[in-house]
Amino acid sequence: MLTLYFAPDTCSLATHIALEEVSAQYMLRYVDIEKGEQRHPDYLAINPKGRVPSLVTPRGVLSETPAMLAFLAQSYPAAGLAPVDDAFAFAEVQAFNSYMCSTLHVAHAHRMRGYRWADDPAAIAAMQKKVPESVGSCYDFIERLFLRGPWVMGDSYTIADPYLFTFAQWLEADGVNLKRVPRVLEHRERMLERSTVKKAISAELGSGSR
Amino acid sequence: MLTLYFAPDTCSLATHIALEEVSAQYMLRYVDIEKGEQRHPDYLAINPKGRVPSLVTPRGVLSETPAMLAFLAQSYPAAGLAPVDDAFAFAEVQAFNSYMCSTLHVAHAHRMRGYRWADDPAAIAAMQKKVPESVGSCYDFIERLFLRGPWVMGDSYTIADPYLFTFAQWLEADGVNLKRVPRVLEHRERMLERSTVKKAISAELGSGSR
Repeated sequence: MLTLYFAPDTCSLATHIALEEVSAQYMLRYVDIEKGEQRHPDYLAINPKGRVPSLVTPRGVLSETPAMLAFLAQSYPAAGLAPVDDAFAFAEVQAFNSYMCSTLHVAHAHRMRGYRWADDPAAIAAMQKKVPESVGSCYDFIERLFLRGPWVMGDSYTIADPYLFTFAQWLEADGVNLKRVPRVLEHRERMLERSTVKKAISAELGSGSR
Repeated sequence: MLTLYFAPDTCSLATHIALEEVSAQYMLRYVDIEKGEQRHPDYLAINPKGRVPSLVTPRGVLSETPAMLAFLAQSYPAAGLAPVDDAFAFAEVQAFNSYMCSTLHVAHAHRMRGYRWADDPAAIAAMQKKVPESVGSCYDFIERLFLRGPWVMGDSYTIADPYLFTFAQWLEADGVNLKRVPRVLEHRERMLERSTVKKAISAELGSGSR
């Protein structure tokens, strides 16, 4: 049994969808970020970084979305979520996911969490101001080059898809001009048609009342 | 044959060391970042993101260090650079490398490349000011929790080691109090004893004159 510690409207949605895609047996545990539960000693004992998501497995705890996604793809090969036995093709998937976490997610995080990188309120405001441009420039690469279509890696649906979809939830809030990203928007719609995605979103929407 | 496009004093060193560790046949191509060669059309044709490193393989180009490192580990299994057939153990390695790229490298990048996230010079200065603290807090996790010793993952040397070593080159320049990181410093010394590391560093030091 696996347990995903998640919070709505965070990148934990990617792993949540992947758990559905591989038909894993798993439990969800809601971490209330607004109440600061991610810094509670009980949660820090699971993930000392104090962030979501965390995936508790029988062998230990994993964090960092690209690693959790690769773990699920490799642990459930029948689901075919990544070409795990083809070093080059697997690396292409991981390169996309690595770009997501280290460049797109980071650009996005300057809107809400600028305090990680500066203390001055004016500096934090200056970071927020640039988010539409910095996030938008990531999407220019995705739109023009990385998103092969219909899925990120082409004909095969992989662990890159729920990760892109998760960030694409925030396009509007990040102030990205949607006219720049018609193919990303199509991908987002395509994802929303999947029963796995519907189920994950539905479970997260209901989580606040727990 | 593989070709690594690299620049001295960047994260390309990690992949360079890994190429040595697996005894790959490879060529080095120096990209002069100070002259802006990473934005030259010839280089953008290889890596449209305009950053180093890039790894040209017979099947195409890879970028993003965690993906390149995983590619080398999986392509040269005899070198034993990652437990690629054990989904959980491999994910632990990848979680460490993902943290390196998305959190430690990002914190470090606010010293030199704040313009990615803000335009205001005062904001960029405010980011630089916080680097010792933001980078230092990453190293607190590494020092206390992630670096098992003697190597990152414990007794086995993996692709996590050259990646940590690469960032540890910048501890002093990032203003991290070295008293906080005795185990990281030991790891850095241990790495410097490896012939592969010596060879990679030596090749990069000589690159400026090419």
